[in-house]
Amino acid sequence: MNRELHPEDIRDLCLGAAFFGAGGGGDVHIYRLVAERVIARLGAVTLVPPDELPDDAFVVDVGESGSPIVGLEHLPPENHGVELLRRFERFVGRKVTHLIACELGGANSIVPLVVAAACRLPVVDGDGMGRAFPESQMMTFPIYGVAPTPAAVADYLGNVVYLETSDAHEYERETRALVTVMGGTLLAMDHPMTAAQVRETAVPGTLTLAQSVGRTLREHRGGAQGLVPALSRHLRGTAYGNVVHLYTGKIERVSRRTEGGFDVGEVTLRAFEGAQPPLRIAMRNEFLVAWSGDDVVATTPDLITMVEHESCLPITSERIRYGQRVSVIGIGAPRHYLTERGLAAVSPRSMGFDLDYRPLG
Amino acid sequence: MNRELHPEDIRDLCLGAAFFGAGGGGDVHIYRLVAERVIARLGAVTLVPPDELPDDAFVVDVGESGSPIVGLEHLPPENHGVELLRRFERFVGRKVTHLIACELGGANSIVPLVVAAACRLPVVDGDGMGRAFPESQMMTFPIYGVAPTPAAVADYLGNVVYLETSDAHEYERETRALVTVMGGTLLAMDHPMTAAQVRETAVPGTLTLAQSVGRTLREHRGGAQGLVPALSRHLRGTAYGNVVHLYTGKIERVSRRTEGGFDVGEVTLRAFEGAQPPLRIAMRNEFLVAWSGDDVVATTPDLITMVEHESCLPITSERIRYGQRVSVIGIGAPRHYLTERGLAAVSPRSMGFDLDYRPLG
Repeated sequence: MNRELHPEDIRDLCLGAAFFGAGGGGDVHIYRLVAERVIARLGAVTLVPPDELPDDAFVVDVGESGSPIVGLEHLPPENHGVELLRRFERFVGRKVTHLIACELGGANSIVPLVVAAACRLPVVDGDGMGRAFPESQMMTFPIYGVAPTPAAVADYLGNVVYLETSDAHEYERETRALVTVMGGTLLAMDHPMTAAQVRETAVPGTLTLAQSVGRTLREHRGGAQGLVPALSRHLRGTAYGNVVHLYTGKIERVSRRTEGGFDVGEVTLRAFEGAQPPLRIAMRNEFLVAWSGDDVVATTPDLITMVEHESCLPITSERIRYGQRVSVIGIGAPRHYLTERGLAAVSPRSMGFDLDYRPLG
Repeated sequence: MNRELHPEDIRDLCLGAAFFGAGGGGDVHIYRLVAERVIARLGAVTLVPPDELPDDAFVVDVGESGSPIVGLEHLPPENHGVELLRRFERFVGRKVTHLIACELGGANSIVPLVVAAACRLPVVDGDGMGRAFPESQMMTFPIYGVAPTPAAVADYLGNVVYLETSDAHEYERETRALVTVMGGTLLAMDHPMTAAQVRETAVPGTLTLAQSVGRTLREHRGGAQGLVPALSRHLRGTAYGNVVHLYTGKIERVSRRTEGGFDVGEVTLRAFEGAQPPLRIAMRNEFLVAWSGDDVVATTPDLITMVEHESCLPITSERIRYGQRVSVIGIGAPRHYLTERGLAAVSPRSMGFDLDYRPLG
């Protein structure tokens, strides 16, 4: 059933989206403020489940591409998305009827809400990853056959680039090259889809799920104990697998560099006490592989997420700092990624790790 | 007066264009064969002087961007340009009436002829550099106020990117980033112009000039002696300055790498005999600065061109080999570059050399 998102819904949705971002998706704080303000001023945003999209819908995904660290340093102006939508529609010669999030993760789950409120469009309750991932060919849309273009990307100076290619890797290469010369972050509209394509390819219900998980995180502000069973209850019957507690400890080491449009690095955690080996996590915007000593304990596409141990607030990769006390939680990947085509796009090997995917737990 | 270019005109035009390319513009051999064939099959191409363009003309420049070395390794299909023109026109919502060369230099002077023959469009007798240069903001069009976009670029796989920016450096950065991920060379249509803009900004008459200089080069196939006075006669009354003999000798050393979409390197020449110091030439697709020992003898924007000593055939930078016997000739830059705005775009300092421009001779 369609439902409306009001300003008071945004806080929990942001919390949950940041949690599902698995370290990626960009910091959500500024986007939350912008979304609340825009929705308060222009009215609620209608959330439409994929199953209830009208058959003649013309859906496009919208999100930011680039380095989350760069994203931290600019304000997202709401009219930026309005202008890009106008140009995208002129380019494709057709009106967009619904927006959809490219990924579930901090900023990129909220960007469609801001643009939708400003353009008075509804948003699909679902997204193209069910988590965040660093590259666009890792989205469920292209994995299951949606062409990445016609697409339009814009920087914050009003420079716009339109792309036409049928190859998802080519699209990623081109936009990534543009990100690196257009200020480190771009707003992108791509993967235009019919209602049928959304129903076949999107991970459904994820904005609603993010909101309810966000509420749970907030209710656990006193500490991460009890969080795993609560999350398990939420995820039962969804596209996700099991929830597993992976580690609790202190950030002992962070190495990170912004390279080729990504934030790349490694984090090491040490347990508060006892002889437990340290947990090491490799990241490329998102947390991709976790090792306990030499043992792999979680790999992409399963979600490796991090929350502050005391407050249960999700921590995105660009916010990690030495000394933070955190809990690391693993979640089984959306089933969309557990197929041959899915794993070909997002297995550890496809991201440059000499590892096969091993399901959580 | 308008005139027609027939297949038998192409040979000299190619020779002359390669000469004016100052090392750049790409190897012309394959383009010559393609142009001759297309024109023979589809009919002569009309060459229109800027002064005789109809006032309602809509002119766009067309050329290849990227590494000339990569350009050597692919065949230029004629229908590639036809398809790009069709897409460019759809993007801007307007029919193109004339094509113009982005630069005077090997391949890039011939590309517009191939596309024009295939699309049955006339070509402006003139271009946007009067020579070749490595970057698009160095063209006379943007220097004198023509916006670089709307523009369209395509690779040989059918991937197309459309760009919108009012900033010439931004346009160069974006297209260069795309070149590096789209196969090393792209076909580009940009700088759409009115007739008035062409008349104000283009270096006029350069295709006709290239053809007559090409004929002269061919008539001097016995040796480079006498070439300088003959060229001086051709260039009298044009936008160019004096012609100067810079050096005659053997290629003693070539260092070259393909980097960031350019061929970058240095060439050293040694005189056949006698105590003359070696000539050193820095190149970035084009020959940009020449030193005799420690003395600067020629700098951009003046043309530093190279011909085989015995045959007078022009040598482009990607064709330089150890042991070649060559003559190096300097030509005063088109007057368009000898203004404050011109030199700001193409002085040695603007290209990273710690040198001021010193006019030839």
